[in-house]
Amino acid sequence: MIKKEILSAIASLVWFCSPALYAQYVVDTSVSINKIYGVNTVDQTYKVDGYLVTSWDEPDPTYRPASGERVYENHHADQLMNDGLWVPAFEFINIIGQRQTANRRVVISADGRVTYNERFQGLFTTTMDFRQFPFDYQTFVLMMEPFSYEQKQLVFGTARINIEALENQALSEWQMQGKPQARVSRSDYAHLQSGILSHFSRLTISIQALRKPDYYLWRFILPLSLILVASWAVFWIEGFSERLMTSFTMMLTVVAYTFYTSSLLPRLPYTTLIERMVIMGYVSIFAAIIVIVFVKIRDEKGRPVEYVIPRCRVIFPALFLIAMSVLIGVNGGL
Amino acid sequence: MIKKEILSAIASLVWFCSPALYAQYVVDTSVSINKIYGVNTVDQTYKVDGYLVTSWDEPDPTYRPASGERVYENHHADQLMNDGLWVPAFEFINIIGQRQTANRRVVISADGRVTYNERFQGLFTTTMDFRQFPFDYQTFVLMMEPFSYEQKQLVFGTARINIEALENQALSEWQMQGKPQARVSRSDYAHLQSGILSHFSRLTISIQALRKPDYYLWRFILPLSLILVASWAVFWIEGFSERLMTSFTMMLTVVAYTFYTSSLLPRLPYTTLIERMVIMGYVSIFAAIIVIVFVKIRDEKGRPVEYVIPRCRVIFPALFLIAMSVLIGVNGGL
Amino acid sequence: MIKKEILSAIASLVWFCSPALYAQYVVDTSVSINKIYGVNTVDQTYKVDGYLVTSWDEPDPTYRPASGERVYENHHADQLMNDGLWVPAFEFINIIGQRQTANRRVVISADGRVTYNERFQGLFTTTMDFRQFPFDYQTFVLMMEPFSYEQKQLVFGTARINIEALENQALSEWQMQGKPQARVSRSDYAHLQSGILSHFSRLTISIQALRKPDYYLWRFILPLSLILVASWAVFWIEGFSERLMTSFTMMLTVVAYTFYTSSLLPRLPYTTLIERMVIMGYVSIFAAIIVIVFVKIRDEKGRPVEYVIPRCRVIFPALFLIAMSVLIGVNGGL
Amino acid sequence: MIKKEILSAIASLVWFCSPALYAQYVVDTSVSINKIYGVNTVDQTYKVDGYLVTSWDEPDPTYRPASGERVYENHHADQLMNDGLWVPAFEFINIIGQRQTANRRVVISADGRVTYNERFQGLFTTTMDFRQFPFDYQTFVLMMEPFSYEQKQLVFGTARINIEALENQALSEWQMQGKPQARVSRSDYAHLQSGILSHFSRLTISIQALRKPDYYLWRFILPLSLILVASWAVFWIEGFSERLMTSFTMMLTVVAYTFYTSSLLPRLPYTTLIERMVIMGYVSIFAAIIVIVFVKIRDEKGRPVEYVIPRCRVIFPALFLIAMSVLIGVNGGL
Amino acid sequence: MIKKEILSAIASLVWFCSPALYAQYVVDTSVSINKIYGVNTVDQTYKVDGYLVTSWDEPDPTYRPASGERVYENHHADQLMNDGLWVPAFEFINIIGQRQTANRRVVISADGRVTYNERFQGLFTTTMDFRQFPFDYQTFVLMMEPFSYEQKQLVFGTARINIEALENQALSEWQMQGKPQARVSRSDYAHLQSGILSHFSRLTISIQALRKPDYYLWRFILPLSLILVASWAVFWIEGFSERLMTSFTMMLTVVAYTFYTSSLLPRLPYTTLIERMVIMGYVSIFAAIIVIVFVKIRDEKGRPVEYVIPRCRVIFPALFLIAMSVLIGVNGGL
Repeated sequence: MIKKEILSAIASLVWFCSPALYAQYVVDTSVSINKIYGVNTVDQTYKVDGYLVTSWDEPDPTYRPASGERVYENHHADQLMNDGLWVPAFEFINIIGQRQTANRRVVISADGRVTYNERFQGLFTTTMDFRQFPFDYQTFVLMMEPFSYEQKQLVFGTARINIEALENQALSEWQMQGKPQARVSRSDYAHLQSGILSHFSRLTISIQALRKPDYYLWRFILPLSLILVASWAVFWIEGFSERLMTSFTMMLTVVAYTFYTSSLLPRLPYTTLIERMVIMGYVSIFAAIIVIVFVKIRDEKGRPVEYVIPRCRVIFPALFLIAMSVLIGVNGGL
Repeated sequence: MIKKEILSAIASLVWFCSPALYAQYVVDTSVSINKIYGVNTVDQTYKVDGYLVTSWDEPDPTYRPASGERVYENHHADQLMNDGLWVPAFEFINIIGQRQTANRRVVISADGRVTYNERFQGLFTTTMDFRQFPFDYQTFVLMMEPFSYEQKQLVFGTARINIEALENQALSEWQMQGKPQARVSRSDYAHLQSGILSHFSRLTISIQALRKPDYYLWRFILPLSLILVASWAVFWIEGFSERLMTSFTMMLTVVAYTFYTSSLLPRLPYTTLIERMVIMGYVSIFAAIIVIVFVKIRDEKGRPVEYVIPRCRVIFPALFLIAMSVLIGVNGGL
Repeated sequence: MIKKEILSAIASLVWFCSPALYAQYVVDTSVSINKIYGVNTVDQTYKVDGYLVTSWDEPDPTYRPASGERVYENHHADQLMNDGLWVPAFEFINIIGQRQTANRRVVISADGRVTYNERFQGLFTTTMDFRQFPFDYQTFVLMMEPFSYEQKQLVFGTARINIEALENQALSEWQMQGKPQARVSRSDYAHLQSGILSHFSRLTISIQALRKPDYYLWRFILPLSLILVASWAVFWIEGFSERLMTSFTMMLTVVAYTFYTSSLLPRLPYTTLIERMVIMGYVSIFAAIIVIVFVKIRDEKGRPVEYVIPRCRVIFPALFLIAMSVLIGVNGGL
Repeated sequence: MIKKEILSAIASLVWFCSPALYAQYVVDTSVSINKIYGVNTVDQTYKVDGYLVTSWDEPDPTYRPASGERVYENHHADQLMNDGLWVPAFEFINIIGQRQTANRRVVISADGRVTYNERFQGLFTTTMDFRQFPFDYQTFVLMMEPFSYEQKQLVFGTARINIEALENQALSEWQMQGKPQARVSRSDYAHLQSGILSHFSRLTISIQALRKPDYYLWRFILPLSLILVASWAVFWIEGFSERLMTSFTMMLTVVAYTFYTSSLLPRLPYTTLIERMVIMGYVSIFAAIIVIVFVKIRDEKGRPVEYVIPRCRVIFPALFLIAMSVLIGVNGGL
Repeated sequence: MIKKEILSAIASLVWFCSPALYAQYVVDTSVSINKIYGVNTVDQTYKVDGYLVTSWDEPDPTYRPASGERVYENHHADQLMNDGLWVPAFEFINIIGQRQTANRRVVISADGRVTYNERFQGLFTTTMDFRQFPFDYQTFVLMMEPFSYEQKQLVFGTARINIEALENQALSEWQMQGKPQARVSRSDYAHLQSGILSHFSRLTISIQALRKPDYYLWRFILPLSLILVASWAVFWIEGFSERLMTSFTMMLTVVAYTFYTSSLLPRLPYTTLIERMVIMGYVSIFAAIIVIVFVKIRDEKGRPVEYVIPRCRVIFPALFLIAMSVLIGVNGGL
């Protein structure tokens, strides 16, 4: 006798957990972002530290306090959810791994409003377009969906996004552009039931940010440009061997820059602005070597074209300026 | 008295967990892959983020809802499984470490259909063949088996595989080839019982992808080719010392490329296409040094062979073109 | 009957967990820091290992011992908190990830004083200003707030901070400046309820430390200065080609220092002192190349200005000293 | 009354856990290795992914099924073990960190045979001897012992080891030598009780594998040899300065190889074969510099020994061949 | 009624956990170290894998077996400790993060002796003095204290330390010096109660080890010395430009060694022996450049001091030998 009762008591605890979802829950969300950090251009990821606040009206009065509101922290909140308070699981669609939640809390007010609140940290991913790197801007995105409940059961209501005012914006590589946006949409999946599409409510938060290119200007573009300009000195040098060896040294240096850009960016199937500059660099020096050898050959065959070299003193800088303009123009046009 | 009853109540909970498997369960699976990322050619691994959906008919009516279907998320699903709902453990054969399951869910419908669903992320491994690198294609594989139940108890039924339409396919290094495939087979083990083979049902998902070689063309093959071409300038230089020192510089540069390829690929017991190019490079420059020293020796001994050098101006480029053709031809033939 | 009683017994355990917070709790804190280590200038993070001690008066006499004090360690402390002893959750605002707590303890004395004590280790972040690097000082900050309870419910009282006397201060890169400070303030949030601001009590601990620049002086500034001084030797060299090639070698070396600084510091949108030195270095060598080519051009055109070179033997060192003075003066002025 | 009964019921669950070990348990083991991977020569570690199967006769009939066998997976197996089924803890002696067990299972048959089975992944360590590197072979070892039960209580019986047939053995750096071995021995410890030795049964699995040296031949030994051979060209160069500068360049290159080997191997208190080659390389070039300067000094003092240089054209290659033979001979002799 | 009884039964389980500590517990310890590995000189950390055995007399007879001894492994040991067996928490003072305990065990004998035993692995830190690097010795330290119980409640009794005989001591970088020591002392803290000092018993284990410098001799000091010696060849070279360019090349090489030492050691506020060698190296080459330019200037002004160069052929080696002797003498004196 008593055995059965205890068993059914335990079982009834389990049955609580899945309330009959007669009506659609409307979940209001508010995301407050403390920090976007660890932007990794090679892996195309970024870390987000923030607070997620979700709230809805719970028709079931079981857990309502008599008055005011009651706060359940961490393990107490888990206990309450295990006992049967309905709190849906949310998942970030574009997360890598799991989010960490250092603290979480459930607040229930006497009028049946349930608020679930957590501080989360997670590694997120988005497709980044580096074609204009380092003059690019990127959109940091967080996409959230309920894990189990379809749109007819759970729909996102009002959505607010809030970025903490950063104290020292001047010291960061990224500058936020415009206001962050929170958008509620619907996404459809076909993977659960063969024939039927499932519809889920989706919350998309997007923050647009512009990269400050100062770092790359001072540490990359300026020295590379100086090296390119210095490489033209080869046209004033006398002597074939001296010309060639200087050109070789310059070329190897510029090629070394290729390796440097490898550590900045992922293995992209396209070239970035900064790489087009490097390629332009070594192709230009290679052209100089071709010119030098060509002059030498003609010279040996007794048909000197020594006048070619002085002309190059003008042609190479001119071509460089044109190429740079095109690069920047193409950039502007995109 | 009461002690015994409580004990047996708790014990009976335990006994539930292993239903007498009279009939064979047929498990239908559907794998939906969000993202294959972090392809690491050095470790021959890749990360997979996806959803695993498995479903079967449960003859035991204990946990069926009266009508419709009931959803159990995360801890509620764990409770249900601990209480006795049969959900088999699956393992990925070719996983490294454990898979992470941020969310999981059990759905039971009134007609006895049980659906287990999880979002998983894991690091998988497969043997990759890099002999044509960077013009290679690879097959990303996921192999799944039930951990405990042999084929007579559990067999995979229909298997579906679904890849999320990637928004910006143009920005990724890999291009999917054909349709992904899901195949059910049988694998045999002898490690449990000495004499007897165990038969397990195995689900194999394979996705073939082609590497886009642009990155390696622009950042590796083009500069390496230019350096090789530039190295032939040595045959126009006058003077033994100048020739030698220029050759040495070029040779050291090409050798430096050896180190660079080390960071791209694992320590393979065979050479890749890109490494064959590098080896061809420094062997060709070494040959030039041999020629230069040979000419010098003959010259010192009073038997000048100075005509050798001009001939090399033709021979070396010709040999290079032939070697390249062979390399590419061999590639095509494989 | 018995089922209800057991259920309500279990439920009453749950209800205990959120005491009616009629009065404001005053929480006294004491933070004792063992070690600040792993200062990572690239990520702008540092690890802190310390003890957190918080204590308050608990009006509810349920858990008080009859006399003396009772100690609950680790799992026993967790049990007590799960059973209903009120211990608020604290969070570090500027932490990355979660803090690890190897051991924790609750002490309750007969007069109702509750002390919660933990050893924690965490990775913290703060905005660092590297403009004077490596002659900079940084402030290591820990900001702590209660996770759920607003100021009207929980306020920080006295706050003590204590740094373990380090045995071998001479062997560390950082030297503590002045006394560490603990400050209690109030911070306001608007993200929970739409219209209403929440007020939380905040404890801020700040420790100021000066970097010892010896490492950078010996391994960076001294060799860089020697290379710069050595580069002036180019004005004594005879011959245009020799001058140019020497300058090129020096310039490439100084540019290589750019790469080295990349591994020391994050991608900052401003230049640090040490980078301004490097930039000054390669710009100065580039200027020398310009002068050398200019002299050559005038020479070719028959208007020799060979007297420019000897003058540079004085001008370059003089400009270098002025630039260094300005750099240091600007530093002092900041 | 009832309180006592419940308490003693709970307590009796605890008492079950440590069966009176009157007789010695004989544990048969079978280890099946899926993959040995991540061989890290710098840390002297390797990762092992495999299945561990242990089985023994349990005299206590409490948990036996009426007929056939019963399978308990993961949490159900844990519950059973917590309730009192005796399953000893095993530890790997040479593991780094803990092993991960993605899935585990207990099978109990009607005749009292208990089988515990887990899939494990772990990082293992062994002392590696690199004196013949890269022509070395290593022995990958797994040592397992029961954690608590001494030999009189638990002894390993039959031990089987099984390596999965690798599909593409040709693509791996290591080649298995002979058959893997499983050996049961006894190990003695004195650290528990002061005066008395404890005896534990130990299972040692060892797999011998030969490194395929192809990678190091093509990417290291071939280019290094070519550079050494090319360095002899210095004896054909005319002019003291040219000779010296060429030698310097070669020497610096060979020294650079020292840095490269640092990334391959740990900081060993002995030299490996590959390092002896490098040391031989730079010492040989240093000797060439000494010869060149010596000839120059004698020349200045009016006692020319210019005949030394041509002789070196023979002596250096000859010494190199002898040194190589000795190196390989010593290798063979070890 | 029954509700109260159950509640008080559960509560009484909790009360057990903190026995009235009338008498002082004397805890005997024995630490057995398997392996000290992963010595990281940059982070000044090392990993320790070992067994910790602690034992004491428990006056409370509740958990004693009737005869012999009873073994509780892992979860069974946890259950026992949760139920009320007093096992104090220990913490390592100088640990980084938490220790991992793969297995743990409690043994209780009929005479009331309780033995707690665990295998632990942890990352430890100590201040290392690298001033004599690579001829330094270091002391690996483990400091352990009870987390909660002061000296009047818990004091360490006999302490034994045991290092596993390493099979292949010859293959390791470190050589143990003398016998490891275990020392019990008292440490005082003021951070818990404002005015009153707490006294804790502390166990300090220290193992002294000498670094074998072979690795650094062959891969660092020998090539660096050869380069320095080779750099004196500059005093035999004819021609100002050749002298300068050779000196520049050598100087840049030695400066490159600065970068190499950065990867070996942390950013220390003092110079190590190996760095003083490098600094001596580039300062010496810089001095040579100064001499060369000085001679050139005097030469141009018509006051040749060409005799300076031959003298340098003696002065530089002599100064080098003196500096080396001083370095080694200072080393010996420290």
